[in-house]
Amino acid sequence: MNFDQILKEIQKEIAPLFKEGQVANYIPALANVNPNQFAMSLQLFDGTSHHIGDVDTEFSIQSISKVYTFTLALHLYGKELYKNVGHEPSGNSFNSLIQLEYEHGIPRNPFINAGAIVTTDLLMNTYKDETFAKILSFIQEVCDDEKITYDKEVAFSEKEHGYRNLALINMMKSFDNITNDTHNVIADYFKHCSISMNTKQLCRSMLFLANHGIDPINNKQYLTSSQAKRINSLMLTCGHYDASGDFAFQVGLPGKSGVGGGIVAIVPGVMALSVWSPQLNKKGNSLIGTKALELFTTKTGLSIF
Amino acid sequence: MNFDQILKEIQKEIAPLFKEGQVANYIPALANVNPNQFAMSLQLFDGTSHHIGDVDTEFSIQSISKVYTFTLALHLYGKELYKNVGHEPSGNSFNSLIQLEYEHGIPRNPFINAGAIVTTDLLMNTYKDETFAKILSFIQEVCDDEKITYDKEVAFSEKEHGYRNLALINMMKSFDNITNDTHNVIADYFKHCSISMNTKQLCRSMLFLANHGIDPINNKQYLTSSQAKRINSLMLTCGHYDASGDFAFQVGLPGKSGVGGGIVAIVPGVMALSVWSPQLNKKGNSLIGTKALELFTTKTGLSIF
Amino acid sequence: MNFDQILKEIQKEIAPLFKEGQVANYIPALANVNPNQFAMSLQLFDGTSHHIGDVDTEFSIQSISKVYTFTLALHLYGKELYKNVGHEPSGNSFNSLIQLEYEHGIPRNPFINAGAIVTTDLLMNTYKDETFAKILSFIQEVCDDEKITYDKEVAFSEKEHGYRNLALINMMKSFDNITNDTHNVIADYFKHCSISMNTKQLCRSMLFLANHGIDPINNKQYLTSSQAKRINSLMLTCGHYDASGDFAFQVGLPGKSGVGGGIVAIVPGVMALSVWSPQLNKKGNSLIGTKALELFTTKTGLSIF
Amino acid sequence: MNFDQILKEIQKEIAPLFKEGQVANYIPALANVNPNQFAMSLQLFDGTSHHIGDVDTEFSIQSISKVYTFTLALHLYGKELYKNVGHEPSGNSFNSLIQLEYEHGIPRNPFINAGAIVTTDLLMNTYKDETFAKILSFIQEVCDDEKITYDKEVAFSEKEHGYRNLALINMMKSFDNITNDTHNVIADYFKHCSISMNTKQLCRSMLFLANHGIDPINNKQYLTSSQAKRINSLMLTCGHYDASGDFAFQVGLPGKSGVGGGIVAIVPGVMALSVWSPQLNKKGNSLIGTKALELFTTKTGLSIF
Repeated sequence: MNFDQILKEIQKEIAPLFKEGQVANYIPALANVNPNQFAMSLQLFDGTSHHIGDVDTEFSIQSISKVYTFTLALHLYGKELYKNVGHEPSGNSFNSLIQLEYEHGIPRNPFINAGAIVTTDLLMNTYKDETFAKILSFIQEVCDDEKITYDKEVAFSEKEHGYRNLALINMMKSFDNITNDTHNVIADYFKHCSISMNTKQLCRSMLFLANHGIDPINNKQYLTSSQAKRINSLMLTCGHYDASGDFAFQVGLPGKSGVGGGIVAIVPGVMALSVWSPQLNKKGNSLIGTKALELFTTKTGLSIF
Repeated sequence: MNFDQILKEIQKEIAPLFKEGQVANYIPALANVNPNQFAMSLQLFDGTSHHIGDVDTEFSIQSISKVYTFTLALHLYGKELYKNVGHEPSGNSFNSLIQLEYEHGIPRNPFINAGAIVTTDLLMNTYKDETFAKILSFIQEVCDDEKITYDKEVAFSEKEHGYRNLALINMMKSFDNITNDTHNVIADYFKHCSISMNTKQLCRSMLFLANHGIDPINNKQYLTSSQAKRINSLMLTCGHYDASGDFAFQVGLPGKSGVGGGIVAIVPGVMALSVWSPQLNKKGNSLIGTKALELFTTKTGLSIF
Repeated sequence: MNFDQILKEIQKEIAPLFKEGQVANYIPALANVNPNQFAMSLQLFDGTSHHIGDVDTEFSIQSISKVYTFTLALHLYGKELYKNVGHEPSGNSFNSLIQLEYEHGIPRNPFINAGAIVTTDLLMNTYKDETFAKILSFIQEVCDDEKITYDKEVAFSEKEHGYRNLALINMMKSFDNITNDTHNVIADYFKHCSISMNTKQLCRSMLFLANHGIDPINNKQYLTSSQAKRINSLMLTCGHYDASGDFAFQVGLPGKSGVGGGIVAIVPGVMALSVWSPQLNKKGNSLIGTKALELFTTKTGLSIF
Repeated sequence: MNFDQILKEIQKEIAPLFKEGQVANYIPALANVNPNQFAMSLQLFDGTSHHIGDVDTEFSIQSISKVYTFTLALHLYGKELYKNVGHEPSGNSFNSLIQLEYEHGIPRNPFINAGAIVTTDLLMNTYKDETFAKILSFIQEVCDDEKITYDKEVAFSEKEHGYRNLALINMMKSFDNITNDTHNVIADYFKHCSISMNTKQLCRSMLFLANHGIDPINNKQYLTSSQAKRINSLMLTCGHYDASGDFAFQVGLPGKSGVGGGIVAIVPGVMALSVWSPQLNKKGNSLIGTKALELFTTKTGLSIF
């Protein structure tokens, strides 16, 4: 397939959609991003890649970081992990609190905030004070890029406005599902949400999920084949907040989005791809990013359905 | 692939699991089924099929009927439907009631009971007194088998014990999300849950979902390609109650289960397959059926991931 | 005290409040009442009574009937009753459903709809087909007036629009907390809600609650002293839906209101009093009725605090 | 009445109940109290008082402190207060979280933890860093005893285990219903819960609530008559967690209990009384304390019903 041509078509077709969405405004550090940006990148197994748009501009990966932390935790603990965090879809944010209460402090999956906070706590059991450093160096490794770091202003802004996340961690702590000091856990959680990446780095980093847990370029194994499948199935059923069902239908690929406007997706056996555009739809996912991925699977037939 | 050989291997490998599960006992008519039964069927696009076990024994399809009613409603109403029923995964049964309240009587998807009840009500808007007859004749058509009917004893038993479903329909009626008489709607709902089929008929009937909405054997079109994709994505994210995430991981195929012990699954572009074994796991899905499908995708590599 | 003078003052002081509230409109039969009506009655132990306003006009007692049915049930079953219905305040209507779910179908008290439905079901265990006749004849007895009956149009209207009550009874039935046929129970429930009374009858009927369970005029005993205290304490903590705390503060008397605009209150050891005015405040209690009772306790010092 | 004789009778009658309850064990500092203690005190308007048992032993007042903080806040802000905290009964602790969510972070009343935390935050708006000092000096003033202080070990213990309270305050902060730094608010909240008093001091301190807001001994006015009535009605409807309805029935007096085993109650126009015994019943109120108060109103007829 002529991927460069397809990317050009997509770029043209999404152009009329600028200004239909709204940039995340719950923290000041994100609200100030120029809304009229777009980037899309494809990373193939043979090392070749295709890009279009603002592909060198870094953005806040936000919830996409949940994929990296869960990967690390799954590698460290395997199925033991499921004592602390489930793997079933959850409903909307309203329920996340009720469900935590009803299900005794065990989040339904690692891609809702509560689940990613527990995952961070589990990493801290092993990595102690080195937890964030380990997370960051893992991301640098899968990206093959040591320059990746986090945005201190965003992390500080998260902390200043993250009261609901503090409510969640304290409720889980009251159910004994958090082991470490809540302030340390939440600080590291906010840090990894604040990591900055561009679409080039993002699609490069997830290639191992498209290839049974093994990076096809350098042959490093990060997960077993079964573990990689678990993450892909979780991304498909829970990767897009309360629009996961819609994403599965419209795009038909495992993927994970963040409120910074980034989305990463996996074509099993073929490639990883990423897209970024900061304006969000009503469900909190990149409006143009979702459309661009839908156009991609329509044009290429690479949906899993 | 030698499907007959694969089916034989599966039959052998699931044998030790008999008696690990429990037959549905919430209604007497289901509780009396001989638990030690197993059947599995594959239906290919060229009309050939492969079977093993008790493939001529009929069982109650229960929630699998939700796929047929949603197909009919999607064909009739298209996207208009989404005013009355959503397409996002929901959490457990506990939440179905709270969510109905919180989301003003709109069920999250057509594969939870509330959603299938609304779907039945929508069909009744068009088909009036003929609603169940139309549902049944549609199922006979996609099965290419006019002998299919429903089990009156099961339907009566459902009605005698279906108080939670009556609570759901009345709550939705109080939110004006049910148009027709609640007793008529619920009676038809219980009837289509009580339809009896065997695995041969079941996999034959769903072949159109594996082929973009068109039955590949007789070329009849039941849905648009986009609508078929919608149903497949719904089956993948919501098809197995509170174990949908697990099924997506373990089996990796769109599918729908019923408490009668049946499961149907789709390999897009390749086949439909069905399995039946009445003992259920703790989440209410056929224990041996789920295992058999997992063995199938492992042996054939036909998972979508 | 010069009660006639006090009633005149109250009538004058409430006059400016007409049209600040809104007549119940959830069923057509109640929506058509002339909103500019007001009546107030006091019934003393020595048989004397004082009245002002439209005291001969009958209105729908609605939830006030819950006091009569609970009296009958408490007399029949004593503390056994508390297996099926609690005696603690509940929050708002939203929670009534969640709490029923969380507390396994046991309503928190007999003065929320779910609790009164269970109470009606318990009476039906004893009275069978005679249940409504027994309820009505009990009310006629405590009123000393055989002409009291129910309004068939209101009862029919309730049934036509009572889907939330049907949701409640079916949910409780699914938890085995309803013994009799749900349609029979709910029919009798709607009937006793539709009983029509005037303020004269209403205050006469509740005099036994002000006198330790014994009617001070004819010396008939309906409840033990302890049971009468239980009902008074329930009226104080749960008698006015989601404004029970406000009523306890503003009026400071045990009381029970209905959406028909009636309120009955008890001055322990002194009198029973009743008020009626059909316009409701935002919490569903008679706006002018509540104010009239507040003026009464302010002028007389007869609050329990 | 011969109050000394009545207290002796009560002491004798409650003796067989020792060891039927269980001392609060959610924090170590409370779990170590000798369970076999009992004290009861009455404080009359003329300055005379009556006591029995361990009346000089101090105990942790815990939730009883909510009455003092609400008194201060009501005095400072009047009805403005109700924008931030309601005055209606709530259901059980399970709901406190759901209700906070559903009611946008506004607690239902000042006697549940969330409500008392908001009250503390409101006091901090005025008193800043002096907040706890002001609370303590107010309690010393109404007790007429400058030696009263708080137990640092208990306060530390609360903080070490108070994760659910931290969840509550952070959720309210996310709804903008907390103004000050959450750590400062919660620290002061835990401190005032940890104040130690004996029954002599406790009943002395609440006398103003029995006398329209004015201390009848020294004639100091702390609240208006209407404000005092509000607190009494709140104590009657919400003073005993999920057993408020039972307490209203069994004792029939406005009262407030704490998990330290103390209960204070008001006989309007007559006296304040207090009781302490550390073993709790299943609803978290002093088992023997509740019984002692029930015996008191039975023997004296001083119930408000």
